[in-house]
Amino acid sequence: MTEDLIQRQDEGGIATLTLNSPHSLNALSVAMIARITAELDRLAADRSTRVVILRGAGRAFCAGHDLKEMQAARETADRGAAFFRQLFEDCAAMMQRLPLLPQPVIAEVQGIATAAGCQLAASCDMVVAAEDARFGVNGVNIGLFCSTPMVALTRKVPPAVAFEMLTTGEFLPAPRAREVGLVNRTAPVAELSATTRALAETLASKLTAAVKIGKRSFYDQMGLPLDQAYALTGAAMVENMLWRDTDEGIRAFLEKRKPDWA
Amino acid sequence: MTEDLIQRQDEGGIATLTLNSPHSLNALSVAMIARITAELDRLAADRSTRVVILRGAGRAFCAGHDLKEMQAARETADRGAAFFRQLFEDCAAMMQRLPLLPQPVIAEVQGIATAAGCQLAASCDMVVAAEDARFGVNGVNIGLFCSTPMVALTRKVPPAVAFEMLTTGEFLPAPRAREVGLVNRTAPVAELSATTRALAETLASKLTAAVKIGKRSFYDQMGLPLDQAYALTGAAMVENMLWRDTDEGIRAFLEKRKPDWA
Amino acid sequence: MTEDLIQRQDEGGIATLTLNSPHSLNALSVAMIARITAELDRLAADRSTRVVILRGAGRAFCAGHDLKEMQAARETADRGAAFFRQLFEDCAAMMQRLPLLPQPVIAEVQGIATAAGCQLAASCDMVVAAEDARFGVNGVNIGLFCSTPMVALTRKVPPAVAFEMLTTGEFLPAPRAREVGLVNRTAPVAELSATTRALAETLASKLTAAVKIGKRSFYDQMGLPLDQAYALTGAAMVENMLWRDTDEGIRAFLEKRKPDWA
Repeated sequence: MTEDLIQRQDEGGIATLTLNSPHSLNALSVAMIARITAELDRLAADRSTRVVILRGAGRAFCAGHDLKEMQAARETADRGAAFFRQLFEDCAAMMQRLPLLPQPVIAEVQGIATAAGCQLAASCDMVVAAEDARFGVNGVNIGLFCSTPMVALTRKVPPAVAFEMLTTGEFLPAPRAREVGLVNRTAPVAELSATTRALAETLASKLTAAVKIGKRSFYDQMGLPLDQAYALTGAAMVENMLWRDTDEGIRAFLEKRKPDWA
Repeated sequence: MTEDLIQRQDEGGIATLTLNSPHSLNALSVAMIARITAELDRLAADRSTRVVILRGAGRAFCAGHDLKEMQAARETADRGAAFFRQLFEDCAAMMQRLPLLPQPVIAEVQGIATAAGCQLAASCDMVVAAEDARFGVNGVNIGLFCSTPMVALTRKVPPAVAFEMLTTGEFLPAPRAREVGLVNRTAPVAELSATTRALAETLASKLTAAVKIGKRSFYDQMGLPLDQAYALTGAAMVENMLWRDTDEGIRAFLEKRKPDWA
Repeated sequence: MTEDLIQRQDEGGIATLTLNSPHSLNALSVAMIARITAELDRLAADRSTRVVILRGAGRAFCAGHDLKEMQAARETADRGAAFFRQLFEDCAAMMQRLPLLPQPVIAEVQGIATAAGCQLAASCDMVVAAEDARFGVNGVNIGLFCSTPMVALTRKVPPAVAFEMLTTGEFLPAPRAREVGLVNRTAPVAELSATTRALAETLASKLTAAVKIGKRSFYDQMGLPLDQAYALTGAAMVENMLWRDTDEGIRAFLEKRKPDWA
């Protein structure tokens, strides 16, 4: 049964991971987190995949942690403390795999992305959302502040926007989410998958090694002092320039033809 | 007399602090800074207050430092140096109390918020502004660059926006201030207080302890490397989960009823 | 011949540097980088210049590195490695001079600003752009990820916006660039120079020393913890207050007259 929690489809160098627990709004149960983690680890070693799409089956992208499972964990002598500790640790480890993955990851969001579900979307490199999709870090409504989702969210949107979402529990509609930098593209829900696919295909058409070195540098240089950031990215540029495919790419550009990348 | 520099009203767990020196556009004089600081220290220890609103009496929120008082301080052997040093130190200490306060703080801004007045608004967690309110860090117009206000401003808005405000001295209108993340909500001036109040009531309706642990984690994790931010917030999540009220909050949600929080 | 790569005009305390290689879309060749660097070093020591405008001759602001020159450098035993290392080092050193320059620098962008040309615009303190100007970090299209341009870009715009530009190679139109914080002002192309000039004149009308101490503090405090940022800027405020011209500026303001700055 748990094998179906994640469905993976591969086409044209694009791997699509579908969270497949629509009855729970794709809740991030212990099993779901383990399955996503395992899939990401497979992808990290998978040289034929150039882009990853992360989506959810059914009417929502992901509604966050599995509250029933968490409540059940309270029946231990430590009232669930060890379980919760492990859960948030495993979840955070999964989230941190996304920027570390060599491939760009696009979240495709319909319906709602709430709490750890919003964190999952914000942990992806880019987000494509249905025009009526909504983002929330609304744990505060049930007395559980979205402290971990906040880590991913505050690295994407201005602090006052994040603070308001976190303390009011109110939803951010997709158009405003795009305005403030959480969402890259919006589309009518009927065109959501096609829009995400088109973006993924654009990325898949690039030189894979260039996208890979670029994504790594992107996160490595973030927040560094200017001189350190330039030292790091300057080294990446030199390495990138020395590849045969980059030589061909520039040569093709100068000769006004398409590059011949194998 | 100085007791009237700040008016405090309490209703429904919401404390409203009103800067009450309208003839000086609520200038941050030595006395005003001392009074705000004292009120914030009282609030920090006040367990019955769940949300704080900071506003100004009269036609402006706050026009910054008290220039007459500062000029008068030049009549010393050191030409005011010790006075200025103490003033900016006390002012910065007051500003830094706002993110450290356990309660969320909402600035309610009408008219203008300029120089240290803009800093005061930007140091609050959220800002509600009249549609025709304007924000400025315009000390440059009189030869005094808004170096300290810049600290709060650059932590809220994109750097090029802040740079333009600081070097041109021009005003940022409330709608643009909302677009770039300085303002959370705008309202017609006649509805400003009601809009701020509604936001404060939304926050006051949440579990106080959750908002408190959340606000602290919010600022503590900001700017940390991802793994450190997750270690810190993961610990907050575990602590939060172990509260009786959070157990009740989640239970109520699963049973589709309102939580019974005392 | 190389003396013409940069044209400098001075008027009213405003120095305009024009990249003058329109046939190459003002490519950042070794010679161009050296010339810009030399001009910036001259400006850093030039006390009569209060504001700098950086612009490009012809139909584009700047299209980035000189690809023909880079390809030619491959004809060495190390396949160009030493050349590329020096090139990116010199280019990064030039870019880092812009925030360090005592004067504010405004980029005036028409047509396109791509790759290192986009980096050059983003490294300026402010950008004024033609309404139909477009910004791109599109090296990925030729297999050379814009790793160094990314350093400047990610310090101006939200990360998801930067990531999309970097991995798709697609252009950001000026209006969206303004929305996300890369561009300060847009104007019809016919009014571009006048708009940039007006902004520069506004800055030039301020007290030069105040703008200078402010710009330095701006970058020095960025990203520091709050207490360190306030310690640094508080010291700047005290110094600024003790200048005779600031005394005069405040005095004039209180007396409702223009300051008499020599």
